[in-house]
Amino acid sequence: MTRPRHVTLYEVGPRDGLQAEAEGVSTVDKIALIDQLSASGLTHIEATSFVSSKWVPQMADAAEVMAGITRAPGVTYPVLTPNLKGYEAARDANAQVVAIFGAASEAFSQKNINCSIEESLERFGFVMESAARDHIRVRGYVSTVIACPYEGPVQPEAVVRVAERMLDMGCYEISLGDTIGVGTPGDVARLLDTVLKVIPADKLAVHFHDTYGQALANILTSLDYGIATIDSSVGGLGGCPYAPGASGNVATEDVLYMLNGLGIETGVDLDAIVPAAWQISDVLGRPPRSKVAVAKGRPKV
Amino acid sequence: MTRPRHVTLYEVGPRDGLQAEAEGVSTVDKIALIDQLSASGLTHIEATSFVSSKWVPQMADAAEVMAGITRAPGVTYPVLTPNLKGYEAARDANAQVVAIFGAASEAFSQKNINCSIEESLERFGFVMESAARDHIRVRGYVSTVIACPYEGPVQPEAVVRVAERMLDMGCYEISLGDTIGVGTPGDVARLLDTVLKVIPADKLAVHFHDTYGQALANILTSLDYGIATIDSSVGGLGGCPYAPGASGNVATEDVLYMLNGLGIETGVDLDAIVPAAWQISDVLGRPPRSKVAVAKGRPKV
Repeated sequence: MTRPRHVTLYEVGPRDGLQAEAEGVSTVDKIALIDQLSASGLTHIEATSFVSSKWVPQMADAAEVMAGITRAPGVTYPVLTPNLKGYEAARDANAQVVAIFGAASEAFSQKNINCSIEESLERFGFVMESAARDHIRVRGYVSTVIACPYEGPVQPEAVVRVAERMLDMGCYEISLGDTIGVGTPGDVARLLDTVLKVIPADKLAVHFHDTYGQALANILTSLDYGIATIDSSVGGLGGCPYAPGASGNVATEDVLYMLNGLGIETGVDLDAIVPAAWQISDVLGRPPRSKVAVAKGRPKV
Repeated sequence: MTRPRHVTLYEVGPRDGLQAEAEGVSTVDKIALIDQLSASGLTHIEATSFVSSKWVPQMADAAEVMAGITRAPGVTYPVLTPNLKGYEAARDANAQVVAIFGAASEAFSQKNINCSIEESLERFGFVMESAARDHIRVRGYVSTVIACPYEGPVQPEAVVRVAERMLDMGCYEISLGDTIGVGTPGDVARLLDTVLKVIPADKLAVHFHDTYGQALANILTSLDYGIATIDSSVGGLGGCPYAPGASGNVATEDVLYMLNGLGIETGVDLDAIVPAAWQISDVLGRPPRSKVAVAKGRPKV
């Protein structure tokens, strides 16, 4: 268990973050955010979600966003594709990486994507087959890896079962998500003790929400287990739908500040992230949900 | 380096927290807060500060607070005493434990308490002599243990020098404070690597501010070094004077939530702390600066 020397920050703000924000953000503002992040050194920026606009109206402009952004060399722009229809739209929009979204909790799967875990895996199968044919890489999310808002605690073994299936289907990486942000470093240690027996650390990412303030401590614990890909959201974009007013995704700035302090390389420039956090927060009409962005203050123009 | 099984939470909200809040809080509300905390299982509640009301008007009612609280069995109520005059007033108010406040940074000492580090130690000497005679225990704070707002980074050796002097003078414990909250787990590891060569873990407490969101990760690192006393502030009371709008003291609820998740005993009941956080935050007219209190929501009456 040695900490990695280099960590990949996987930015989820434009997708996971903005999807969870109540306020609508214009296509122009989304494109501006992604282009700003492209200049920060981030190499993975999840740009949007090809989902039914009936279910997620915030992402109805997915194709426009993908057409409007300036793709920077060395940066990939994954998009979420819950099913084959979404996948085909993403491919037509020239996505090079797509992501599928499963759950470790049966109740969460039913309520969130309207099918059982097994049915969701079948559905993902069609996406995986097409993606393999099109040479498009697929990332797998497993949500509710520590607890479910409907079922309570989730056993690490349930996480392993879904994660292994997704890897077997061809996902290049699995992102383990504490969707409701209740986990502590104790939970994370128990989870990774089990998962790492079966899946190597270089196939895993962690995705923490800061709802109970535990995200950085959980990330520190994950680093101690050798995890080297961390999901985060600029400005802490995204709230927690299960605790109104509470935080959602951990802020990219806060993670980056810690990694810098630990001497872990990321290639990402904090001084480029903080202005992006302030700019999108201004669009949303509130201060950044990031301690670092607030402590550093609004950038002087 | 094994984590402790039991941790003492040293509550600083009524003193360090309210001292840094811009809004004045009435003596009645202060007493209500302390009495509420006394019923939570906390054993150390820093109640007030016997300082010049010219410098710290928020604490002008120190004697009234000490006379008004209901002292619970098994709970001590330390108070801050910067000099002999403050000490004598604290003793007359039946304080059983007092605290002195030094700095590891020369510039901070000059700006914060108007004297050099050496002069401050001489001044503390008078307090220590009287306290020894009166059988009153003395806690020592060392501030700016990682960085100084005026001087920048502070060397661990400078922290050791002051901490050792204070212990030699008779302090029973030294609380190491990252006053401006800029430290990361990397800084904390470097600090404790040096300090623990000279001072045993059971003579140390850590005092983190969450200004850059690093407090829980820093506390987790301190636990890994065997530190078993942690300062925290109910509701995250107290701002950061060096970064307006930013967080100050780490919230007791957030620390306690993490310790509970790690299976570390504290004897403190989270369900008693959260209502106290909301009540004092209501007095201040804002939500608690604690992720846990916000995520759990306002207690139903």
